[in-house]
Amino acid sequence: MTAVLDSLQQGRQTVQPALRAAIDRLDPTSRSIAYYHLGWTDLDGNPTSGGGKAVRPALALLSAEAAGAAPETGLPGAVAVELVHNFSLLHDDLMDGDTERRHRPTVWAVRGAASAILTGDAMLSLAQEVLLEVDGPAAVAAARLMSEAVNELIRGQVLDVAFEKRHDVSLDECLDMAAGKTGALLSASTAIGAVLAGAPAATVSALAGFGADLGLAFQLVDDVLGIWGEPSTTGKPVYSDLRARKKSLPVTYSITHGGAIGRELSAWLAAPDQPDEASLRHAADLVDQAGGRRWALDEAHRRMTAGQHKLEEAEIGDHAREELLSLARFIVTREA
Amino acid sequence: MTAVLDSLQQGRQTVQPALRAAIDRLDPTSRSIAYYHLGWTDLDGNPTSGGGKAVRPALALLSAEAAGAAPETGLPGAVAVELVHNFSLLHDDLMDGDTERRHRPTVWAVRGAASAILTGDAMLSLAQEVLLEVDGPAAVAAARLMSEAVNELIRGQVLDVAFEKRHDVSLDECLDMAAGKTGALLSASTAIGAVLAGAPAATVSALAGFGADLGLAFQLVDDVLGIWGEPSTTGKPVYSDLRARKKSLPVTYSITHGGAIGRELSAWLAAPDQPDEASLRHAADLVDQAGGRRWALDEAHRRMTAGQHKLEEAEIGDHAREELLSLARFIVTREA
Repeated sequence: MTAVLDSLQQGRQTVQPALRAAIDRLDPTSRSIAYYHLGWTDLDGNPTSGGGKAVRPALALLSAEAAGAAPETGLPGAVAVELVHNFSLLHDDLMDGDTERRHRPTVWAVRGAASAILTGDAMLSLAQEVLLEVDGPAAVAAARLMSEAVNELIRGQVLDVAFEKRHDVSLDECLDMAAGKTGALLSASTAIGAVLAGAPAATVSALAGFGADLGLAFQLVDDVLGIWGEPSTTGKPVYSDLRARKKSLPVTYSITHGGAIGRELSAWLAAPDQPDEASLRHAADLVDQAGGRRWALDEAHRRMTAGQHKLEEAEIGDHAREELLSLARFIVTREA
Repeated sequence: MTAVLDSLQQGRQTVQPALRAAIDRLDPTSRSIAYYHLGWTDLDGNPTSGGGKAVRPALALLSAEAAGAAPETGLPGAVAVELVHNFSLLHDDLMDGDTERRHRPTVWAVRGAASAILTGDAMLSLAQEVLLEVDGPAAVAAARLMSEAVNELIRGQVLDVAFEKRHDVSLDECLDMAAGKTGALLSASTAIGAVLAGAPAATVSALAGFGADLGLAFQLVDDVLGIWGEPSTTGKPVYSDLRARKKSLPVTYSITHGGAIGRELSAWLAAPDQPDEASLRHAADLVDQAGGRRWALDEAHRRMTAGQHKLEEAEIGDHAREELLSLARFIVTREA
């Protein structure tokens, strides 16, 4: 899988200067907060090595290649998806009360709510601006694709927030939420390069469908890691999603399809007391015994297969197809 | 001034259905929060009469007329500026901790921070979408104009938040903040109709300049009302800006240009205790005695005159010019 790491590294090297140039247009305060959030500097503004894997930008470049264009054709799209992704992280961390991301304090936790809100707003607006500066008719098409993805992203987050107060969330509702919250932006990432390359609608649609499947698969695995993941890998405390009583996909499956064990899990989630480590381990076991873990991993596999079929039927080059599939597998399994 | 009220009423009648159609595309939760925020329904979703004056949409329609087009040409712009305006209100009320707007509880105060953040995000994204759906090359031009206005709006709010923690804000910095926070969107409102009508750059630029001047004049008067305004008119408690120790334009003028009285005012603002009514009245008197009130009203007049000159030199129809000026005077004086 070193080829994937190479491709990610290459993506970062292509995208980083353009992303930096975009961020540098922000006012000095938002810029320095964005630098910190992106892992480019510490709180005092000193450069740090780090930052995310930038999988969405890499997908956007491959998306352009898939449409027979140079990866650079997808560059404004790569910058835009990374900006939108980080807009949503800034706002979500605040709304979810998460104090850590990538092993560092979140922006709202160290700089206050206003900083997280405004830097997020600025990054969202900047994403559209970068796309609107593209020459030719692809600018509007790409900006519209992004607008729709942002709408879906917000819709997903709205559902996520609403589900926290509900005890009757169905599996379909939960899948719909994940399609919005995670699927929409990954779908835009795998399609936007092709849109910028002026690809036919059928190609764009196949790539978008692949990205949506990839997004669901990623979320299913992410939810499994949110319960059983190693803190050193996830950057979150163990049982983190259970601690937050999150109705994630495996939890919702277990509640709605797990019979008596599901009911016990549901009662555990509704209990008002702060659970200790043993209680969390017990809840995790309930999710497992009710079939939620197995289902989530199987469903992730099914989504990946469905996405792969869409790519195989699309009229795209073999090399780009292979790269997209390798990157997708890496994103889902997080192993290289 | 009944002509102005007619023109506003007409603007609302033209814009309201399109704005509603746009809002209706949001997910049900965001939609119902937007309805409440816009004054269309109460908290339970029952229809109410009310809502803002919608001056920005009226300016956008007149902007199209100024460029010789039908007002309807400016309609997507009118919807977009109203959406962006309300995006910023939703986020600002949360960041500023304001619990009341238009005599009703603010969204964050009744529905929580996440609702205000997400509904704001959704309205911002929707504004771009509405513009991107316009046929022809004006779509990109209008969407770019709006993107730049949003960037400026956010920059202004970033400065506003930063100024709260500073005691050395210069008058120029304060004017620059107001130009971003208030001027940018009014400037976009007076220009976007002309952009959608495909007007020459010189006309767009004159209209944008007029709107920027109008924005500054409005903010100067708004800041005076923030101290001395009648609660029944402003919908805010008396001395509201002093209570919040806001370094508004008249306050900043008095501090930086008011000699000994200014220093006394500065010390008052820095004091840690919660001021009572008598203390607030005393502070308001200090702003007055140091010349801040007079300067703000004079400066508002100068800005209006400068804006009027820009309109007079622009190649636009007499009727639209008169209507723009009347509406501008109404916005600034709030009398009809």
